[in-house]
Amino acid sequence: MLAMTVGQYSFVYNAFSFAFATLAAATIFFWLGRSQVSAQYRTALTVTGMVTFIASYHYFRIFESWTAAYNIVDGTLVASGAVFNDAYRYVDWLLTVPLLLVELILVMGLSRQETISRGFRLGALAALMVALGYPGEVATEVGTRWAWGIASMIPFVWIVVELFGGLSKSIAAQPEDARGLVKTARWVTVLSWSFYPVVYFAGAIGLEGATAKTVVQVGYTIADIVAKAGFGVLIYMIAVRKSPAPGVALDARLANA
Amino acid sequence: MLAMTVGQYSFVYNAFSFAFATLAAATIFFWLGRSQVSAQYRTALTVTGMVTFIASYHYFRIFESWTAAYNIVDGTLVASGAVFNDAYRYVDWLLTVPLLLVELILVMGLSRQETISRGFRLGALAALMVALGYPGEVATEVGTRWAWGIASMIPFVWIVVELFGGLSKSIAAQPEDARGLVKTARWVTVLSWSFYPVVYFAGAIGLEGATAKTVVQVGYTIADIVAKAGFGVLIYMIAVRKSPAPGVALDARLANA
Repeated sequence: MLAMTVGQYSFVYNAFSFAFATLAAATIFFWLGRSQVSAQYRTALTVTGMVTFIASYHYFRIFESWTAAYNIVDGTLVASGAVFNDAYRYVDWLLTVPLLLVELILVMGLSRQETISRGFRLGALAALMVALGYPGEVATEVGTRWAWGIASMIPFVWIVVELFGGLSKSIAAQPEDARGLVKTARWVTVLSWSFYPVVYFAGAIGLEGATAKTVVQVGYTIADIVAKAGFGVLIYMIAVRKSPAPGVALDARLANA
Repeated sequence: MLAMTVGQYSFVYNAFSFAFATLAAATIFFWLGRSQVSAQYRTALTVTGMVTFIASYHYFRIFESWTAAYNIVDGTLVASGAVFNDAYRYVDWLLTVPLLLVELILVMGLSRQETISRGFRLGALAALMVALGYPGEVATEVGTRWAWGIASMIPFVWIVVELFGGLSKSIAAQPEDARGLVKTARWVTVLSWSFYPVVYFAGAIGLEGATAKTVVQVGYTIADIVAKAGFGVLIYMIAVRKSPAPGVALDARLANA
């Protein structure tokens, strides 16, 4: 018999379904929202929607994998024999986490040179962070989990330093009514991302059992929604504030012609 | 009992799912990115997105075929009796490989005459290359594999000669800030495509077993992502650099009005 109750199973099941619906709807919002912003910020919204699209795909797969892994027989939860594929999360993060930093860089509207160099550096660090975490996630020994987890924190700290050091000058150069939102986006990045190592190290200090498993699954799901859909709404708001109101740009140009 | 472990099976499984997500997201990026470039380069991005769309479809099918071919029973991998359909790869390449050369030709913005003649010639050579490889891929005799493989190399070498010979003058005529990227795109084509014969001939020199099979599947997958999504990003960057910055075209028109 499994330690997990039907109630816990259903809670995770509903959380996964909720995440799929939220992320899929957010995707459409960001892609349709492209027409509301200046041409130079449209790529930021394209990428923002790509992140939620990729995440919604993975929540669909995670949901399918979760339902395949368990059966309810006579009101009790039993393992079906199929394995719940937790690796979807890492496959997802490997793609989406670098893209999250790319969308922040794109909406800042830096020079082409700075966009490319910062985008590639931050993207590579984010991919490295995720890749270093995985061996620890699947490790059976606690020591191995700690070792990879700490290795993974090095690129994470480096990203934080870049966001609060290297990017500060560029943030100060943002238009006044967008500056506060860019700073918020930076904080949302750091704070929502901090949740992942908390869950990760919860495994390393030996938190186990059905309740811990439920908390981990629901926790990762909430973090994904905040870091991807919530963060994306901030990116959208920044892009809107930096775009002239509809019609204004053309009027100004016509006046100068 | 199968030689392949559950770990190897899952690694391939996750690689296929990763490829689907990457290629599907890339497709949207290229198609939405059409609005960011001049009208004359939009067809190049349409075709770039077609390539990743076709490939994402095939990775979806390959994933389904892979999961149908195996079951995990009591933690051990067993064959289900269904056959893993490797032919999806060749069906995919028959469509996508000619289109990859067409997108490179389209983004170069050559004369209509040159676009048509080079597009058809390179596309036909690429289709021939894929078609000649297939009988060797499914051959049971090593000698047959070698014979078709070598036959397939003839159009491949011809394509390389065209890219580095015939196209050189056209590349030299590209605008300065796009020229480097076009040269990079040419190299990415040749280098990422070179990976395919390496895997192909690995079969001809008798590399077999579960590890070889895992390496082949994951290797082809990485090569497909680089050659299609990665190459597509280069095509997108070339198209953006060759297009006036957003608003500039309109300003120029208004100034002339």
